[in-house]
Amino acid sequence: MPYVSIRVAGTLTRKQKKKIAKGVTQVIAQETGKPESSILIFIDENQAENIAKGGELLDEQS
Amino acid sequence: MPYVSIRVAGTLTRKQKKKIAKGVTQVIAQETGKPESSILIFIDENQAENIAKGGELLDEQS
Amino acid sequence: MPYVSIRVAGTLTRKQKKKIAKGVTQVIAQETGKPESSILIFIDENQAENIAKGGELLDEQS
Amino acid sequence: MPYVSIRVAGTLTRKQKKKIAKGVTQVIAQETGKPESSILIFIDENQAENIAKGGELLDEQS
Amino acid sequence: MPYVSIRVAGTLTRKQKKKIAKGVTQVIAQETGKPESSILIFIDENQAENIAKGGELLDEQS
Amino acid sequence: MPYVSIRVAGTLTRKQKKKIAKGVTQVIAQETGKPESSILIFIDENQAENIAKGGELLDEQS
Repeated sequence: MPYVSIRVAGTLTRKQKKKIAKGVTQVIAQETGKPESSILIFIDENQAENIAKGGELLDEQS
Repeated sequence: MPYVSIRVAGTLTRKQKKKIAKGVTQVIAQETGKPESSILIFIDENQAENIAKGGELLDEQS
Repeated sequence: MPYVSIRVAGTLTRKQKKKIAKGVTQVIAQETGKPESSILIFIDENQAENIAKGGELLDEQS
Repeated sequence: MPYVSIRVAGTLTRKQKKKIAKGVTQVIAQETGKPESSILIFIDENQAENIAKGGELLDEQS
Repeated sequence: MPYVSIRVAGTLTRKQKKKIAKGVTQVIAQETGKPESSILIFIDENQAENIAKGGELLDEQS
Repeated sequence: MPYVSIRVAGTLTRKQKKKIAKGVTQVIAQETGKPESSILIFIDENQAENIAKGGELLDEQS
């Protein structure tokens, strides 16, 4: 029952999501000893306009 | 001020959201003794493509 | 695979956690049609000092 | 590396997002002594239909 | 009903929490037009050992 | 600025945290093309008593 939330800026392709899901699940299963089937991942694709670093929106970073 | 985040795959109808909001609020109010009015719920509807279980995207589960 | 995060101020007894887990799971299973076994709940017990409403820490609310 | 998640009902204008990002970053940098550049903020705009207070969806509050 | 989650490394003093709660609430209220009383903030103090940047735990950053 | 939250039941050793941080960062950097240095991970260790699956607390699962 490990739960993983991954938040990224912009969108990912289906292929990227598949590889991230597979890879992150393998890492966590291997290190924790929990079965892969118990690992739940949510991927959130956020607009760059809704993320800020250093007080500036991501799409305005110089 | 209990805060509840509910993440589901796919979309819910308005009726489903109303019933979940009402039911979850009642359960938590009753068990914690906090007033219903203090309970805040966010429902997130996520695409199955953005959720993985066992390392596979939900819409590819066999 | 609905995922639920419940954040409360202070601590809950084991009995309260059991009843909340059971009750919230039943509501969501019934309204979404998902099996109860697929529903994952995390309860976070937060110190009142770490929660604010209206700009004031919870344990200073008048 | 402070991380901030801000969830609001409805949408914000770009100008509102910019001001919130700037203002929240300044407050946290000033109080924690962490550099502004290390502060990461995500803003989630949620439909009122997906938020409930007191067991009722936000857009049905009387 | 804006909801804010703030996650920091290490602990904050009560005074820091009060100032962050007050300051963040004021910024969000002012920019969104929502009443301060509706703004809910949770502060999470995380051990540096439980946060990683660039693949390294925070307390091992060179 | 990908942000990752990993929630597990029970505690992890420092070594496990290091390997998870390294491995998850590598997977996400490789698939998204973002620099490793931009990836922020929080690990939450939750008591089994605070997690439920199928409506039952984890430490009561038969």
